[in-house]
Amino acid sequence: MADRPGLPGAVSTPAPPPADDSVDAAIDAADAVGFVAVGTPLDPNLRYLSRVQPADHGSAFVRVSGRSVACAPAESVGCANAEFDGEVATDRVGDPAGERAAAVLDEYTDGAAASAGGTVLVPPRIPHDAAVYLERAGYDLRSTAAVAEARATKSDAEIDAIDAVQRAATAAVREAERLLATADSGADGDLRREGRPLVAERLRRATNAELARHGVTDADNTVVRGRTGSDRTAVVGTAPAGNTPLRAGEPITVVVAPRGPHGYHGSLARTFVVDSDGGWARRAYVAVESALDAALAEIDAGTVARAAGREAGAELAAFGFDPGSAEGPTPAPGHGVGLSRRERPSLDANADLQAGNVVAVEPQVADPERGTVRVSALVVVTADGYERLGDGDPSFTPRG
Amino acid sequence: MADRPGLPGAVSTPAPPPADDSVDAAIDAADAVGFVAVGTPLDPNLRYLSRVQPADHGSAFVRVSGRSVACAPAESVGCANAEFDGEVATDRVGDPAGERAAAVLDEYTDGAAASAGGTVLVPPRIPHDAAVYLERAGYDLRSTAAVAEARATKSDAEIDAIDAVQRAATAAVREAERLLATADSGADGDLRREGRPLVAERLRRATNAELARHGVTDADNTVVRGRTGSDRTAVVGTAPAGNTPLRAGEPITVVVAPRGPHGYHGSLARTFVVDSDGGWARRAYVAVESALDAALAEIDAGTVARAAGREAGAELAAFGFDPGSAEGPTPAPGHGVGLSRRERPSLDANADLQAGNVVAVEPQVADPERGTVRVSALVVVTADGYERLGDGDPSFTPRG
Repeated sequence: MADRPGLPGAVSTPAPPPADDSVDAAIDAADAVGFVAVGTPLDPNLRYLSRVQPADHGSAFVRVSGRSVACAPAESVGCANAEFDGEVATDRVGDPAGERAAAVLDEYTDGAAASAGGTVLVPPRIPHDAAVYLERAGYDLRSTAAVAEARATKSDAEIDAIDAVQRAATAAVREAERLLATADSGADGDLRREGRPLVAERLRRATNAELARHGVTDADNTVVRGRTGSDRTAVVGTAPAGNTPLRAGEPITVVVAPRGPHGYHGSLARTFVVDSDGGWARRAYVAVESALDAALAEIDAGTVARAAGREAGAELAAFGFDPGSAEGPTPAPGHGVGLSRRERPSLDANADLQAGNVVAVEPQVADPERGTVRVSALVVVTADGYERLGDGDPSFTPRG
Repeated sequence: MADRPGLPGAVSTPAPPPADDSVDAAIDAADAVGFVAVGTPLDPNLRYLSRVQPADHGSAFVRVSGRSVACAPAESVGCANAEFDGEVATDRVGDPAGERAAAVLDEYTDGAAASAGGTVLVPPRIPHDAAVYLERAGYDLRSTAAVAEARATKSDAEIDAIDAVQRAATAAVREAERLLATADSGADGDLRREGRPLVAERLRRATNAELARHGVTDADNTVVRGRTGSDRTAVVGTAPAGNTPLRAGEPITVVVAPRGPHGYHGSLARTFVVDSDGGWARRAYVAVESALDAALAEIDAGTVARAAGREAGAELAAFGFDPGSAEGPTPAPGHGVGLSRRERPSLDANADLQAGNVVAVEPQVADPERGTVRVSALVVVTADGYERLGDGDPSFTPRG
């Protein structure tokens, strides 16, 4: 798809990744008949394989005898024909996805495999009803992580797609930063803007509106959090970030993981303090920035992934913070980013990083009373280090 | 959650629905040991039962011996404790969801059910790996539609939640309408605004930004479409609505199905024509409005659902349009709306409407050359008819 001049953050559609090779290798290794994925909307495996966003009631992807076949529901056949690079099975389009997948397997193996109890590889979380259809058709199912593993190494087109979403993420968090920079703090410490309290939910909405203006969806992932503590459940997670006024002197974290129209995510965490008096938040910020640098120094194709997490933890400890006490939804030091907002490789995994991995490195310090400080970088692993995706530098004091 | 003065479209969290009764009735009817749902993020069944948005790697809900137990992953236990009205199983929080669910079943039946091969009810699309864990633990799985059926009838709190999202949907489509009303059409018929081409993607982004300002996510569901035809794949579906300039005299459809922070959707379709010269688009619009009225006249608790679809089709035919030729992703005349954007009841189903059903009635006329005209209404079924949700009237000519 061509660039769209005049539209900020234009997001192009990445070319299909070379998934077939990894699926075929898994089929060969297991001496299997084929591979079947069945997906709900946004299922990352199915999206990776077929390049078509599954419809509400499930699409299937079948790899058999060197062919890739998409079984789309009736209303998606036109879309599948236009976007899918393999065959589109249009027979029995109204049937359950598992039944259609079994029919495709039968067709391309003359039904011989089924009668012989042939093995079919499936992702572990294939819907149970689809699995039952395949088993009733005579196939023996075995789960494979081949697709999740293939997804961990991105093609150049996928990296471009993630980079475009990450630029939108940066712009959106900059918008939140600008609102904070132009907020006033009253005598009570509560932030106000244009005469109204600057509550966390107001900042979350402004962030998401900026994401939308850049053509990406917030995907329910945007979290704006003031200090943690007794009102923590009101401001954590995907529930409205709450009516709690944000306050001067306390860390305010803005975390986004938007998704582009092609399904790929960005990932960005920033922490701001308005009118800081130094103290805990400043020290925590310096420690987290230092931990981020220490982790990034370990990012390199061939280095074990958990080295990055280990170095980040060691750096936090050197500043007197206990990384083991970190609370919150992502205590891990980092993770892969792609069609899932969190995927392989995890930065606490005992496996080597590979060139083409895209990882969010996101050390944090969390204190039940004083709040959370988190700063992230999204990088692509290269043969001799990494390259940052997106743009923009973090800042402790919000800039206008 | 309290209202948030100063924030438009504040969306409150609905109270937990009385789901346990329907699940218990299904358990009794099947003489089963219990019920297990395992969910990926946004899984509507799990969300309905537990009121907690599942984490990335799966949560489980177990109903056994009159207890409701949520098995949340480690990083969600705090959230689950705060939001879930039943017990939260905190043992083995890191294990696969299916394994945790099996452990809960074992605990509350003293393992006796497993050794006796007790039946456990599951939604049809439970992830296969979870099903295998339960089967290996000795349980015999049987699928149930009890939860999907229970979800079709909304509580007052659920209706309020949908109404709030629908108001945001109306405001967002109004924003698109305003942009169209203030567009200029040049000699070539292409719409322009502020000196730039008004392409479909620009309108889609403006619509989504307005949704975000109201605190709801577009959920990848917003579609802006100019006329159909050779560039149809570029403007249909959740891919970027494309760089195609929108044109005067041709129908422009704006379809949204946003999701609030509680998981409930709205659903709204509008069609606008800038500088219409009457003709096909005007006739199609009158036919679709008339079909909508005819369908709404059939909405009533106790009336068979497909009567609405049948009357809409008859009305379109009376105007000389063939409803059978309708193309596009939603040829159906309407469907339920809730935690899924499309759920029970379908308006072509052979079952009676029930008070508390929330249905989007959305007749359309589609022509491969001239475009698509669709107008919808979202209503809640009552004992003696229906009530509209959201606000705002449709208009053929965009209003400023």
